[in-house]
Amino acid sequence: MSDRTFQEVLKEKTEQITEIVRSFLPAEEGKQRILFEAMNYSVLAGGKRIRPLLILETYRYLGGDPEREKDIVYPFLSAMEMIHSYSLVHDDLPAMDNDMYRRGKMTTHVAYGHAVGILAGDGLLNYAFETALKAKMLPGEQENVLRALRVLADKAGAYGMVGGQTVDVIGTGKSFTGEELLFIYKLKTGALLEASMMIGAILAGADEETVRAMEEIAADVGMAFQIQDDILDVTSTVAELGKAVFSDEKNKKTTYASLFGIEESSATVEKLTARALARLSEYGSNGQESVFLKELLMYLVHRTK
Amino acid sequence: MSDRTFQEVLKEKTEQITEIVRSFLPAEEGKQRILFEAMNYSVLAGGKRIRPLLILETYRYLGGDPEREKDIVYPFLSAMEMIHSYSLVHDDLPAMDNDMYRRGKMTTHVAYGHAVGILAGDGLLNYAFETALKAKMLPGEQENVLRALRVLADKAGAYGMVGGQTVDVIGTGKSFTGEELLFIYKLKTGALLEASMMIGAILAGADEETVRAMEEIAADVGMAFQIQDDILDVTSTVAELGKAVFSDEKNKKTTYASLFGIEESSATVEKLTARALARLSEYGSNGQESVFLKELLMYLVHRTK
Repeated sequence: MSDRTFQEVLKEKTEQITEIVRSFLPAEEGKQRILFEAMNYSVLAGGKRIRPLLILETYRYLGGDPEREKDIVYPFLSAMEMIHSYSLVHDDLPAMDNDMYRRGKMTTHVAYGHAVGILAGDGLLNYAFETALKAKMLPGEQENVLRALRVLADKAGAYGMVGGQTVDVIGTGKSFTGEELLFIYKLKTGALLEASMMIGAILAGADEETVRAMEEIAADVGMAFQIQDDILDVTSTVAELGKAVFSDEKNKKTTYASLFGIEESSATVEKLTARALARLSEYGSNGQESVFLKELLMYLVHRTK
Repeated sequence: MSDRTFQEVLKEKTEQITEIVRSFLPAEEGKQRILFEAMNYSVLAGGKRIRPLLILETYRYLGGDPEREKDIVYPFLSAMEMIHSYSLVHDDLPAMDNDMYRRGKMTTHVAYGHAVGILAGDGLLNYAFETALKAKMLPGEQENVLRALRVLADKAGAYGMVGGQTVDVIGTGKSFTGEELLFIYKLKTGALLEASMMIGAILAGADEETVRAMEEIAADVGMAFQIQDDILDVTSTVAELGKAVFSDEKNKKTTYASLFGIEESSATVEKLTARALARLSEYGSNGQESVFLKELLMYLVHRTK
């Protein structure tokens, strides 16, 4: 990695992740072929593959056996990306955000019809568990695979991502209190990031204390990520229009930036990021992988849109 | 059971199943309370609890340890009912069958709104895996729990129920070939029945050959059940209106009865049922539970609507 930039390494790793995920996707055949096509379209429509990458890099950071990556880590990182993809497919539905385009492509329900859009989301969520359960375990690895499955399920569901999405959706058109906003950010965005670092840790054989630490680090990074998103929403509007419009305000959407202002928001991002990186330094090795995971977390927070 | 009718025993067992499932449902609290309410409403709106009952009765039929029912069977039978419930919630959505009522009650999206309807279905599917993963395993039970999880996931997804639902939905308004119809029946109706008997067998510690036999028995029963449904659709119309109207034909919906006629359909139901019961007799004990499982399968096929 020494003579390559972080961006170059990230690009290569992201492509590798996409190929791993692709290798687990269903063949487009059979009477339900349109369902498989819609599922694959949803997953392969692009994306930064942040969550699966976090699983793999946390696994490496904590000294997971490279020889076991293919058999036990690949199925989980693919499952994670499928869950992220399904959540976008259902979020885009007419009854939810009603988005026609995502990343410059038609959303799944637009490309395949409303009914198949719903079913492709269902199919992907279910297929995530089918995929994680393809983990090929050596004797003694069952316990950790079951722990990782529990984290995946718990963080994706009603106590995690789906719960956050619910509070977000039922509040559409109304303004949120700060407490509600933090709940949405923690569950809708944070939960899968937390699950990713936790699963990487569990599969690497980390103890419970380390797994909890990864959960807290990811929670900080997820919150910083989301607040930074709010800041970008304002500052990119400034760059485009020459004045701050708070574009989310057009939908009466409360954001961290609208509640607390840009300055305090930026300070919170810095505080959360610093705390996460300091905490992370207490764990793991000092090799190249260690450097990459920290850079990845920094990148996540400080990306431009 | 000797001095009670099958119907009395069935009623009691169904109520027991409902209480077990209820014990795993989420508490209705927290900011996403409406989501938990909608999930619980969907599961508790009624239903015969056939699939969870099949898990429990197959487990008992094959000599599963009564002492292990609570720890490892209850989570799975509850998970199965949650998956069945979520499939109904999403089938009822406007983009799918657009049903306002089910079992005399408002469907979930009517009662809680379209967005929460979608999210309650997602939440229930996800919660099914959270629930199955609550199985409390003794050393040595992990392998079978993982096998049961694989069956649950495989049969519920794109290669099972969701796949069957897709072919059904995309064909709405068109007529199906016999081959397509059997595909839909096998996947949309059969897959979860197959999974139920397989999971009961796996958790009882059955070998692979027995598990496959249970899959085939359930496949026969599921097909007989679905064809009987088609027959009832015609004969109940006869009883009501004095002539056969083939009510499904109003929606240009192909049924087994419309393709092959009542007589051949009835003969097929009898053939499939006899084969399933004969096969089942090759396995299991001869106690009271054995009698009940056979009566349950007969009841499933020969119920009136």
